[in-house]
Amino acid sequence: MRGREMEKLKRTDRLVVLSALLTKNPNVLFSLTDLAALTGAAKSTVSEDLTIIKEVLSGFSLGELCTVSGAAGGVLYRPKEDADGIKAFLHELSEKLSDPERIIPGGFIYMIDVIFDPQITSRIGEIFYTKFQHTDPDYIVTMETKGIPIAMMTARSFNIPLVIIRDSGRVTEGSSVNINYLSGSTRRIQTMSLSRRALSANSKVLIIDDFMKGGGTAQGMLNLMQEFNAEVVGTGVMIATRDPKEKLIKDYTALLELVFIDESKKNVVIRPFEAKK
Amino acid sequence: MRGREMEKLKRTDRLVVLSALLTKNPNVLFSLTDLAALTGAAKSTVSEDLTIIKEVLSGFSLGELCTVSGAAGGVLYRPKEDADGIKAFLHELSEKLSDPERIIPGGFIYMIDVIFDPQITSRIGEIFYTKFQHTDPDYIVTMETKGIPIAMMTARSFNIPLVIIRDSGRVTEGSSVNINYLSGSTRRIQTMSLSRRALSANSKVLIIDDFMKGGGTAQGMLNLMQEFNAEVVGTGVMIATRDPKEKLIKDYTALLELVFIDESKKNVVIRPFEAKK
Repeated sequence: MRGREMEKLKRTDRLVVLSALLTKNPNVLFSLTDLAALTGAAKSTVSEDLTIIKEVLSGFSLGELCTVSGAAGGVLYRPKEDADGIKAFLHELSEKLSDPERIIPGGFIYMIDVIFDPQITSRIGEIFYTKFQHTDPDYIVTMETKGIPIAMMTARSFNIPLVIIRDSGRVTEGSSVNINYLSGSTRRIQTMSLSRRALSANSKVLIIDDFMKGGGTAQGMLNLMQEFNAEVVGTGVMIATRDPKEKLIKDYTALLELVFIDESKKNVVIRPFEAKK
Repeated sequence: MRGREMEKLKRTDRLVVLSALLTKNPNVLFSLTDLAALTGAAKSTVSEDLTIIKEVLSGFSLGELCTVSGAAGGVLYRPKEDADGIKAFLHELSEKLSDPERIIPGGFIYMIDVIFDPQITSRIGEIFYTKFQHTDPDYIVTMETKGIPIAMMTARSFNIPLVIIRDSGRVTEGSSVNINYLSGSTRRIQTMSLSRRALSANSKVLIIDDFMKGGGTAQGMLNLMQEFNAEVVGTGVMIATRDPKEKLIKDYTALLELVFIDESKKNVVIRPFEAKK
């Protein structure tokens, strides 16, 4: 009896440590050998534990465990969100942002409290991961400043490096590639700059940003990526405005849509984005 | 026998879902009532599960479970790192950064690949949490741009909002408070700016940044915080230079020290920071 209790204790211990380690480290590959050594169990036993964890996480919509076979194989945790969870979260976020108190002179919306909140940015990172996982990027690319927190959290979900395009070359990052672009919102020529070392040749990049109006910044990032021979596999923005309907780039995924803002009437409407035909 | 197996299955299920949910959401308070509803178990049963999880996480140095009593009580996960783990990580990070190939003309070090890497920034966030947990801040404050990823991850570990000081007022954030400061490294007067709405009155803030040389930027942030009647409860930087020995601010915590950099001899030495007497 004592022995069986000990055995039960070990399995419960292993389930706790494996669940915590895997879900704390999204898309980090752990080899079965290392996990067996860590928990003091046979690889076959750890495999059984992982089967239990996989089923439970999936049943509670907490993400996926994925087994990678082969010599460099192991197991990793994919922080995928399910469709219902995404829908409910984006609905809640829309309500939060559609608050007249957020309107700022000039027709802007104050939202840094939302896009710098760690729980919200973590969820957004997982949602972008879910939507773009199939594109298999090597880097997440954003432009400073406000998009950095959600881009960082997206990079965390993918477990790939973040690359930040600057609005001017910085001496502390060495030689850089600079391009000029026309910002859709300010209608002014601006510069964006990226260190030559920031991207490996022939990389696949996913662009993530907080806001898109005309698409000028996104178009500029696309052009800059061409200078690095990088392939843009997707563009994700948290909020896109309904107007102008024609953006400078066609292929993007928005989570929310800014439908309407009227400064004088103190009225703003933000909704979950629905893709048009 | 079947019944007992079912029961065992339920406990293992609960351990997996509770471990994952808690460790995925650092410092998010979950009520016992909600966890009981989620897992379909009695509160007393969930309490037993939490005791097991707490012991295992602690035994594997994976952080702490903390029970908060009272009406608004529950349980939360604290992502604390142990001293040995911190020491080993900072040693490894020092080695990685002490690479002559990182020297950039002007005597700077290329480190954005390191400070924008999600696994490294996650660890740094947990280390700053461990070092500053007792200061109980309401906000993490940083200045754009390069410190944002580590500041965001620190904010995530604390589960408190991030606040980003800008290098100029932005029209999309409403009215702002601006101050001038003397940057220690460039010896030039520069401006820092923060939206009036960014901080509640009488807040406690923890300043996090990637690099400190003379301390001019940190001093500027301190002054700006005074304008908001905010109390700076601590300042944490990833790397501080050994020279100048006298910084503009005295009270800071550095993780690493840039001991020496010689551009002509291609030599750079970075070490884990050791507090002096």
